[in-house]
Amino acid sequence: MADVLKEKHIPRATIQRLATYVQVLEAFTRDDVEVISSNPLALACGVNASQVRKDLAYFGEFGIRGVGYPVVSLIKAITSSLGVDREWRMALIGVGNLGKALLNHGDFRARGFNIREIFDCDPFKIGEIVHGLEVRCTSELPRLVTEEGIEIGIITTPPERAQRAAEHLINAGITAILNFAPARLQVSSNVTVEYVDFFNHLYALAFRHPKD
Amino acid sequence: MADVLKEKHIPRATIQRLATYVQVLEAFTRDDVEVISSNPLALACGVNASQVRKDLAYFGEFGIRGVGYPVVSLIKAITSSLGVDREWRMALIGVGNLGKALLNHGDFRARGFNIREIFDCDPFKIGEIVHGLEVRCTSELPRLVTEEGIEIGIITTPPERAQRAAEHLINAGITAILNFAPARLQVSSNVTVEYVDFFNHLYALAFRHPKD
Repeated sequence: MADVLKEKHIPRATIQRLATYVQVLEAFTRDDVEVISSNPLALACGVNASQVRKDLAYFGEFGIRGVGYPVVSLIKAITSSLGVDREWRMALIGVGNLGKALLNHGDFRARGFNIREIFDCDPFKIGEIVHGLEVRCTSELPRLVTEEGIEIGIITTPPERAQRAAEHLINAGITAILNFAPARLQVSSNVTVEYVDFFNHLYALAFRHPKD
Repeated sequence: MADVLKEKHIPRATIQRLATYVQVLEAFTRDDVEVISSNPLALACGVNASQVRKDLAYFGEFGIRGVGYPVVSLIKAITSSLGVDREWRMALIGVGNLGKALLNHGDFRARGFNIREIFDCDPFKIGEIVHGLEVRCTSELPRLVTEEGIEIGIITTPPERAQRAAEHLINAGITAILNFAPARLQVSSNVTVEYVDFFNHLYALAFRHPKD
């Protein structure tokens, strides 16, 4: 089943829903729910039930007709199919407040997303120890990416330094970037960038807010 | 023009692109670019040029045919039309590392998104001063939301406390929530929730990463 998913082109929206299902299924495990049918799962996810059934058809072997899906097995099947049931080693550039908060975000490591190296271009920060990691100069990126087997780069620099940070990561062989800086990155088509953009969300809230 | 936009139903995807245009236009101002045409703007945003022209047709009066858009005026027109050119007062629930990082995120205040009150249910945190704000008990939310004119709530609790935090906010009259907790919230249809979900993005990067 996992292989079926990997071989297909899965739209971004489907990946987003699968990630949401995992989040909600994990909440059910905290409440000791062992089996869940598609209707309550759909309700908890804010997705319609037929969509849930369609998405989970990939994992059909786990469903028991008239009963539902075993929660723990379904989480494992989805995370395995997405390739997130293993360790992913990450490097972070920009050791400011947000960078430090992410370093201390226990959930990352718990889910296998492991920040192994941290970088900054500020000479006053280089050598500082933050949550057990030494802040390194970006010139060391290529060597450390290879030595540590790093696959994902995180950018938490100010916006005007984000493009430079992306270029450091790409030159070191990284093709997957999670960008928290409020800036668009110019990258070649073999590089995947995901944007975590707080203001995009705040703008949406503000715009939809009832006007006075 | 701003009024035209406010009266229409604008899809979420359009708001997202408008927020991106603002971000990219701000980068152009840092490079002292005064006028920009739709092609370079589209390239920098990763959006096709006809889409940019269509989106910016709302702000058509600002464009000069054959020359382009004056950057600063266009930023003002977009932010005004989205209603983000004024102060938005916010309350944050969950004063952990992520909450503290957001409090210290200079960009929020610079863009008018002002965290005015912070809350936690941990008695050891209540009374603590964090970045100049006193951590309050959630029982004080209704009074402070009214007194301070707070319109947006931010949730940075662990996932198992997120629903409770949302209910505190909603009971205090808040209908716009930015949720950083990795949990889906059950809210009535008059409440808007935006999810900032790091794992959703990491899952997408991991899934699209070239497999060994």
